[in-house]
Amino acid sequence: MSLCLSGMGSFHAGGRWVAITGEALRTARFTQDTEVTFDPNGHYVVEQAYVQWFRPAEVKASRGVLFVHGGGLTGAMWETTPDGRSGWVELFLGQGFPVYVLDGVERGRAGWCALPSVWEGDPIPRSAEWAWELFRLGHKNGFATRQAFAGQRFPIEALDAFVAGFVPRWLSTADAQTTALVAVLDRIGPVDLICHSQGGESAFRAAAARPGLVSRVVAIEPSGFDDGLDPARQTVLGLHGDFFTDTTVRLDLKLRAFAERFAGRGGRTEVWDLVARGESGHSHMPMMDRGNDVLAAEIGAWLLGATRDDGAFDSTSPCPGRT
Amino acid sequence: MSLCLSGMGSFHAGGRWVAITGEALRTARFTQDTEVTFDPNGHYVVEQAYVQWFRPAEVKASRGVLFVHGGGLTGAMWETTPDGRSGWVELFLGQGFPVYVLDGVERGRAGWCALPSVWEGDPIPRSAEWAWELFRLGHKNGFATRQAFAGQRFPIEALDAFVAGFVPRWLSTADAQTTALVAVLDRIGPVDLICHSQGGESAFRAAAARPGLVSRVVAIEPSGFDDGLDPARQTVLGLHGDFFTDTTVRLDLKLRAFAERFAGRGGRTEVWDLVARGESGHSHMPMMDRGNDVLAAEIGAWLLGATRDDGAFDSTSPCPGRT
Repeated sequence: MSLCLSGMGSFHAGGRWVAITGEALRTARFTQDTEVTFDPNGHYVVEQAYVQWFRPAEVKASRGVLFVHGGGLTGAMWETTPDGRSGWVELFLGQGFPVYVLDGVERGRAGWCALPSVWEGDPIPRSAEWAWELFRLGHKNGFATRQAFAGQRFPIEALDAFVAGFVPRWLSTADAQTTALVAVLDRIGPVDLICHSQGGESAFRAAAARPGLVSRVVAIEPSGFDDGLDPARQTVLGLHGDFFTDTTVRLDLKLRAFAERFAGRGGRTEVWDLVARGESGHSHMPMMDRGNDVLAAEIGAWLLGATRDDGAFDSTSPCPGRT
Repeated sequence: MSLCLSGMGSFHAGGRWVAITGEALRTARFTQDTEVTFDPNGHYVVEQAYVQWFRPAEVKASRGVLFVHGGGLTGAMWETTPDGRSGWVELFLGQGFPVYVLDGVERGRAGWCALPSVWEGDPIPRSAEWAWELFRLGHKNGFATRQAFAGQRFPIEALDAFVAGFVPRWLSTADAQTTALVAVLDRIGPVDLICHSQGGESAFRAAAARPGLVSRVVAIEPSGFDDGLDPARQTVLGLHGDFFTDTTVRLDLKLRAFAERFAGRGGRTEVWDLVARGESGHSHMPMMDRGNDVLAAEIGAWLLGATRDDGAFDSTSPCPGRT
């Protein structure tokens, strides 16, 4: 690849201050030779999001795309695939989109809250076996031998690298994730969302909260939704893969039901059943599957087509995300 | 800025499989409308590192630089400064260095281990007050009014954004961090290290384990060391800032003592006292301070000068970090 950028950077957005009081001093060994007595009382920032952004020198889209990862994952899921092919970050930059990559609240570089009593419940780690089944890589009993579904596009040979990208998740932070994502939108300005799985909930809810900023939501097998989108101003492209007859988690049916509700309110929506489109074999992670480049091109074309009437784009404005 | 890349990407490296057995099934609400019963038993990858890399189209250095963050921070600390100026990632790319940015074990996109009984102790969060003092931003009693040391180069007005970048840290993962960093080096190949504070320990230990891969360590106020560097093959540039007379944590003296031990074994080493060099006012975070661009240029020139005799560099080789 060869790619010229007019800017790149990152920022944290959202979050709130929490004050801790009444805790005793603690002593611990912080370096090889230094014991430190420290005061756990004080002020902390929690529930912030992190965004990394890249702006191509030659912008071809009327607005950028913001990638919203799924549950138990970080923004890294949109980068290089586990088997070393280009991810959607590079593939959308290559099409001329300014690209923003979110690490939502409690994921990746957003950090997480280790203070007591701020978040409910314990963090949930995801085993490789669970992902194997939930992400529709193969039958449950095929995990031990890595026997995938016939025609599987996910790079099974790189399963270890994929599992290394898993991070813990809380189940009590959905509101905080949405609030921080709205803060991200307010910082970026007009942008379209590409979300995955659990990221659907915060993406749709943030889009519903900012119909003037988010015109399009591309939802890759979302597991959460918001029926408050503005049908006059917002458009939804939903997309789902293969192998749903082998699972009880019917994200395809949930997506279709959501699209029908939105269409019933007059919303413009499309649902791409990749099998029906002749692209069979996609798992729950189409951005990592073989053929992820074809999908990036198809989604990119849809976004470019859908934005044709958006009016002029001021490509000389300061880099978004910069104060 | 304008920057052309011949490649970018990311990978996870290192880590080990952990098997959990004997736990009861759990049920929890995973999405807005779905309760899931899941099996916490199974296989997990823990203690992996994450690396994001960028390769400039025009490489001017004989080897790239790998940034190793400090304690309670992630690789984001080397990106855009809290007040929105270019960080060292951009500033070293602009000088023609291939750049690798580490999220070490239990930080950022490397993820962390939420399994019971794998790591000792609890994660330690860092308060804004503690950072204020430890990072030498101002006197302890100046925090409430944000009254910084006179001549302070750190962008105090962006303290909130800085604190939003803090993440929890364990005190029991130093060995795992070093092991994962060695795995990163084995994946990248020859590279020089730029480390900060707590990152000094894993960086020096990994360099000592791989003298054939790491020729130079640039250590920014390191708090940990390894006296096993190879004086015949490895060079150290240490660097420290201002305001040490106002603190009990004398990283400047520790750095100088380490350099003297290394020189005593015949090692080539330099220590830059930024005050003595006429660059007063630097905090513990010189990569974020005003003047970070001057330091990036000075360190870059030192690395380029130091590498003059390293022989030809094959800039047509495949992107490092790619399998």
